[in-house]
Amino acid sequence: MEAHDALSAKIVAGVGFDGVWASGFAIASSLGLRDCNEASWSQVLTIVSHMTEVTETPILVDGDSGFGNFNNVRRFVRAIGRVGVAGICLEDKLFPKLNSFIGSNQPLAPLEEFCGKIKAAKDTQDDAQFSVVARTEAFVAGLSIDEALHRAEAYCSAGADAIVVHSKSTSGREVLEFARRWARRSPLLAIPTTYYASASPAMLHEAGVSAIVWANHNIRAATRAMQLISRAIHETGTPAVVEPSIATMEALFDLLNYAELEDAERRYLPPKMKP
Amino acid sequence: MEAHDALSAKIVAGVGFDGVWASGFAIASSLGLRDCNEASWSQVLTIVSHMTEVTETPILVDGDSGFGNFNNVRRFVRAIGRVGVAGICLEDKLFPKLNSFIGSNQPLAPLEEFCGKIKAAKDTQDDAQFSVVARTEAFVAGLSIDEALHRAEAYCSAGADAIVVHSKSTSGREVLEFARRWARRSPLLAIPTTYYASASPAMLHEAGVSAIVWANHNIRAATRAMQLISRAIHETGTPAVVEPSIATMEALFDLLNYAELEDAERRYLPPKMKP
Amino acid sequence: MEAHDALSAKIVAGVGFDGVWASGFAIASSLGLRDCNEASWSQVLTIVSHMTEVTETPILVDGDSGFGNFNNVRRFVRAIGRVGVAGICLEDKLFPKLNSFIGSNQPLAPLEEFCGKIKAAKDTQDDAQFSVVARTEAFVAGLSIDEALHRAEAYCSAGADAIVVHSKSTSGREVLEFARRWARRSPLLAIPTTYYASASPAMLHEAGVSAIVWANHNIRAATRAMQLISRAIHETGTPAVVEPSIATMEALFDLLNYAELEDAERRYLPPKMKP
Amino acid sequence: MEAHDALSAKIVAGVGFDGVWASGFAIASSLGLRDCNEASWSQVLTIVSHMTEVTETPILVDGDSGFGNFNNVRRFVRAIGRVGVAGICLEDKLFPKLNSFIGSNQPLAPLEEFCGKIKAAKDTQDDAQFSVVARTEAFVAGLSIDEALHRAEAYCSAGADAIVVHSKSTSGREVLEFARRWARRSPLLAIPTTYYASASPAMLHEAGVSAIVWANHNIRAATRAMQLISRAIHETGTPAVVEPSIATMEALFDLLNYAELEDAERRYLPPKMKP
Repeated sequence: MEAHDALSAKIVAGVGFDGVWASGFAIASSLGLRDCNEASWSQVLTIVSHMTEVTETPILVDGDSGFGNFNNVRRFVRAIGRVGVAGICLEDKLFPKLNSFIGSNQPLAPLEEFCGKIKAAKDTQDDAQFSVVARTEAFVAGLSIDEALHRAEAYCSAGADAIVVHSKSTSGREVLEFARRWARRSPLLAIPTTYYASASPAMLHEAGVSAIVWANHNIRAATRAMQLISRAIHETGTPAVVEPSIATMEALFDLLNYAELEDAERRYLPPKMKP
Repeated sequence: MEAHDALSAKIVAGVGFDGVWASGFAIASSLGLRDCNEASWSQVLTIVSHMTEVTETPILVDGDSGFGNFNNVRRFVRAIGRVGVAGICLEDKLFPKLNSFIGSNQPLAPLEEFCGKIKAAKDTQDDAQFSVVARTEAFVAGLSIDEALHRAEAYCSAGADAIVVHSKSTSGREVLEFARRWARRSPLLAIPTTYYASASPAMLHEAGVSAIVWANHNIRAATRAMQLISRAIHETGTPAVVEPSIATMEALFDLLNYAELEDAERRYLPPKMKP
Repeated sequence: MEAHDALSAKIVAGVGFDGVWASGFAIASSLGLRDCNEASWSQVLTIVSHMTEVTETPILVDGDSGFGNFNNVRRFVRAIGRVGVAGICLEDKLFPKLNSFIGSNQPLAPLEEFCGKIKAAKDTQDDAQFSVVARTEAFVAGLSIDEALHRAEAYCSAGADAIVVHSKSTSGREVLEFARRWARRSPLLAIPTTYYASASPAMLHEAGVSAIVWANHNIRAATRAMQLISRAIHETGTPAVVEPSIATMEALFDLLNYAELEDAERRYLPPKMKP
Repeated sequence: MEAHDALSAKIVAGVGFDGVWASGFAIASSLGLRDCNEASWSQVLTIVSHMTEVTETPILVDGDSGFGNFNNVRRFVRAIGRVGVAGICLEDKLFPKLNSFIGSNQPLAPLEEFCGKIKAAKDTQDDAQFSVVARTEAFVAGLSIDEALHRAEAYCSAGADAIVVHSKSTSGREVLEFARRWARRSPLLAIPTTYYASASPAMLHEAGVSAIVWANHNIRAATRAMQLISRAIHETGTPAVVEPSIATMEALFDLLNYAELEDAERRYLPPKMKP
């Protein structure tokens, strides 16, 4: 489940998801930026490092197209590994990348160049448990299933631990078909932002998809809620009407564990300095 | 109206508020941290600098107790001034501060020391329009109206452009009384998080309050929304039910002005490289 | 004159140079990194922002090849403009770039694409005084003087305020020839790292070069000095021998203006808190 | 041996020192700042994280007085631990601290409060090998040997892995005496910036000092070298005279391992993209 800051990561973990998707689109959005590498890799690093500070749930970082060439990939993998990220997802687009839902037929990276990035990422990881997930944008680029399979195969040979096949179709047909033909050669992830209704999670799983990424739903939830509440307060001049539909201060104090601070004060502050 | 990241600042501006309150509590929350200076001043700076990148609406930064002594205040004022922040609010607590809604009778900074911080802030600002707002926590500390007025008076003499009188009462009576006795000696702000129902904005304005800060409502809105949507997706395994209650991808593309990117590509990319 | 951190920028300014060259190579070196965009643009930004905090001397930032496409250029120009940088130098290589002294015949960016970056930079600057300097690596790429002049001409037409013509020859002949044929169509800068001996500053000026960049001499000075002093202390087990050849603590206190802190304490601290 | 950036850390490691002292004074100086917590803890973190990226030599970070209270200590210890720092040194001064060589009789933190910080640091470290070093400024504060010993004893009881006893005397007599009376109860470090001549390393070791910190010599070496070289170039208009006394470009390429980049290109770049 998507998170874009430490708070949303904490919420995702608290709800019980197995993993956090540190979405490039969502992180860019929270920074007020567009999903075309307007945020630098080190700005993304700062945010995921805030996430790993506050949750133990594994975080898969959206590494876009790798922020440059194989060497930039190495730098990023080393940096996120140090702060405890569980894996990176790299997509076979150029740098700077553009969000997959914008425009059409975006150009892909040359296959061999992208395989080099995967190899570089695998050779760089310190922790044997770290995962490198390769995402093919073949469908987003208007290419065929054969081409998508060809690329996925090459990425696995280069060392990818799992494959994401992305699509912005509303039917999800190409993803289902891909999954069937992929036949669990490796773990396979899908991101059904546009096709969740026609290709249900059950159908995806049955076709061979191992895991599903809800890639942008928290930033969309937060945006809508803030727009509604801000507008209501601006228009009515009071939070009276909206108060029941927002978290209480106490709920945030609980979520962020203010109680631990009081415990710690008892442990570490001399008696006279305790509040 | 509170914002805690660039996206919320953009939303606040878009709704039409006159100003953004870059809340220490809300920023800490978005970082998964507690409101006791767990975030460094430079981490706060990074976030407000993301805000000023994406909105022209004036931003008043919650400077807590100033992140140390007068010299730390100077460093922070210079830094936020450079990235275009409109003003700082400093509160008369110690460093590290603790959120005003936690515990009781928190100790205040010695009056003269805090006046030194205000002077230091005023002497440091580069832009004549920059505002230094002094917030007295006298009521939060359990002190009398006379003491609150005495402090406010001293802060104005030290150069403060406006006063915030804070309270966590649910009646707001002490704030109303303060406002009447203050008698518009300077602009006066109130933060009716706990007393908005009993002391309405109209009553506050009539008593002499110049402006009201809704200090934490966007982070509370976002938190509740993300909790509900995450839980629903986790439990049902699909976003089908929640989809209508979250912003669309297109809404985010609009808010973040993806269209400008396409315009810019036409202006700056050679014909053959245009997508 | 090159600087790579705030201290070196302060030294350059103190010595009397008209400008600071915030060198990509030197900044990368101080970060322990290589000059191939291993440092992100926001890491470079952080460092130049430390520089502008402590000196009024104009800083020209080495923007490498622009950290991506025209849009990344816009982001960087806006960011450095906000912290008071005087200008950016962009070079016509690809991203990630590689230091010009490494390898040979590095590929150049397509001319039109690079012109788009210059236009984008000029359209983005807020301050009319901000300079966009275009650096052609035509000679580094093994191209002819005609090609170098053609590119320089195009860059000026695209809006560049000045041209840098770079070369790693030891004779400097191609730079002198370029300068003569350029004939002061715009300000022209040279970086005689390798050819300072054969093409002296006087010769360069006479040929039409407006300004000379000493692009890496402070990092090289610091490196050698630290190597010698560290080795001497490690070998002899005492700083006794090297003490006379390093700055005193007092010299640093002076350079960094510790005296101002004492003045400020008198102004801003209550009498009883003064040290 | 002191380092203040990744380059100096690399040099210290290369020369063969057993450990790097990430000095607060030197880091502040390289940022153009004064040693009174003008740099935030997260700015210090950024710099030491650059250091651990490029060297395996253990780094002991100067944590000043802990950047606030016990909770700020916990935050900092967790953050530096994550990036691979070997230990922290905390000193028993107030926040913001002031460099020990400035002024006289600086006030110390209450003993119990400081012990709380040490406990908090020990309870926070993730890695059993992480060291918490407690530094007493008793002598700097004008206190007696008895008081210094009393504090050191208390710090060890609170969990400190080693003690630093600091002094700005030129004789070093109080440090020698302290060391004798301390009698190796724990590892003991000395920082003989002012007294290296009268109390030689051999004498210190004999008295019971376990290790010596050369706390500021690289920043002082770099400063002097840059001042001399910058001045010479400014005055003569050419680097001709200074060229032999600064590192060559090739020396920096070696130190920073540019050769590895070429190897990596062979491994990860497709044949046609290799330079």
